[in-house]
Amino acid sequence: MEFTSEHRLDDGVLERDFTLGEIPGVLWTPGSAPNPAPLILTGHNGSLHKREPRLVARARHSAAEYGYAVAAIDAPGHGDRPRSVVEEQVRADLLRAKEAGEPIEEILDALILPMVERAVPEWRATLGALLSLPEIGGPVGYSGMTAVGIRLAVVEPRISAAGFFAGGFVPGVLREEARRVTVPLLFLLQWDDEGNDRQLALDLFDAFGSREKTLHANLGGHVGTPWFEVEDGARFFDRHLK
Amino acid sequence: MEFTSEHRLDDGVLERDFTLGEIPGVLWTPGSAPNPAPLILTGHNGSLHKREPRLVARARHSAAEYGYAVAAIDAPGHGDRPRSVVEEQVRADLLRAKEAGEPIEEILDALILPMVERAVPEWRATLGALLSLPEIGGPVGYSGMTAVGIRLAVVEPRISAAGFFAGGFVPGVLREEARRVTVPLLFLLQWDDEGNDRQLALDLFDAFGSREKTLHANLGGHVGTPWFEVEDGARFFDRHLK
Repeated sequence: MEFTSEHRLDDGVLERDFTLGEIPGVLWTPGSAPNPAPLILTGHNGSLHKREPRLVARARHSAAEYGYAVAAIDAPGHGDRPRSVVEEQVRADLLRAKEAGEPIEEILDALILPMVERAVPEWRATLGALLSLPEIGGPVGYSGMTAVGIRLAVVEPRISAAGFFAGGFVPGVLREEARRVTVPLLFLLQWDDEGNDRQLALDLFDAFGSREKTLHANLGGHVGTPWFEVEDGARFFDRHLK
Repeated sequence: MEFTSEHRLDDGVLERDFTLGEIPGVLWTPGSAPNPAPLILTGHNGSLHKREPRLVARARHSAAEYGYAVAAIDAPGHGDRPRSVVEEQVRADLLRAKEAGEPIEEILDALILPMVERAVPEWRATLGALLSLPEIGGPVGYSGMTAVGIRLAVVEPRISAAGFFAGGFVPGVLREEARRVTVPLLFLLQWDDEGNDRQLALDLFDAFGSREKTLHANLGGHVGTPWFEVEDGARFFDRHLK
């Protein structure tokens, strides 16, 4: 893991870009921390960049106010990373199918599943590298995109708690895998999310194998999650990571 | 309003029994409050007593840790109050219908609707008396039983925010009235509540007219609400009453 830039922000948080092989990431750590900080991996949605402003605001807040180290990486084909010819093709297919009003589930499977297959090992490698830093001590939470989070929570025993945002497509194979997620879970749903089937999201909440799981649903569309959910998320992680 | 007993609890909270006409109630106020406290009316469920231990624990916590005045009253036919012959008859009908596996919706309507019709004016009278006390300043929230809370939130303009527990039967007429509830709302659902239809609860959440409404659902049965929801509820009221 190599740090390629570093600067100290207004709120005292140290923000560092890093690369781990071909994975580009950002790490936010608290300004003053007497002990190694617990870690939150924050997996952004869809095609968002690791420096998407709302993601950055949440990450900085978790570091400055709650003392977490927070890391984001660009998933394969996202943010700063090149898309493969296959990905470009599938995205073009998706656009065409949407415009034609055709079913898009199979195309979304073809887009999301390979991304998950690649992103999860990358997260695990990143996690290993982050935990070797003296300023990070674990335990570890994951917060963000559900599809990646399900697989990561199932295969990575160092994940102790997870906050999933129910605003993205989750392939059927991962919906099945949700039954094997057992860590404490906070599942965040926007009640009127235009592109997200509410009943599918509720069914997914029902499917998770976790004994402690909480659903938070708020009125409004995909990007309307109220800021107080950032606070609620931090307190959820406080209960399980501190 | 007449106070009939008063004692200071370990956590500094002042606990006073009161009567207002035939209405018996309890008032918890913070140990030290520089200013008049905002008020939460806490309406217990079903046939519970105003001193039901979980209700008391929540009320004391809201007073001691968050600085709220909290009031509970026994609804007509509940707690310390006598049941009418009609109520006893309806309750006997309910028991018989349940044992026989017969539909109980009409019987529940006959039990709950008259109670709501009587309880809501009593809450409003109690609210008026409480707001005349120098140590209580408003604004006012309601927390508790959904059926009573819907009607109270619709007719009583002094209610500024409401937390409803989705664990009790809500007559159809009140489910319709839910569309006229417009105050900020926190709706609390136990995902595996044995006696509560989950889909009906989700439909009710959907129906509320409030622009700001949040659903919290937790795994577990009717009485399994985790303690952290008490904290979440207090923070919800903090956002709207302070």
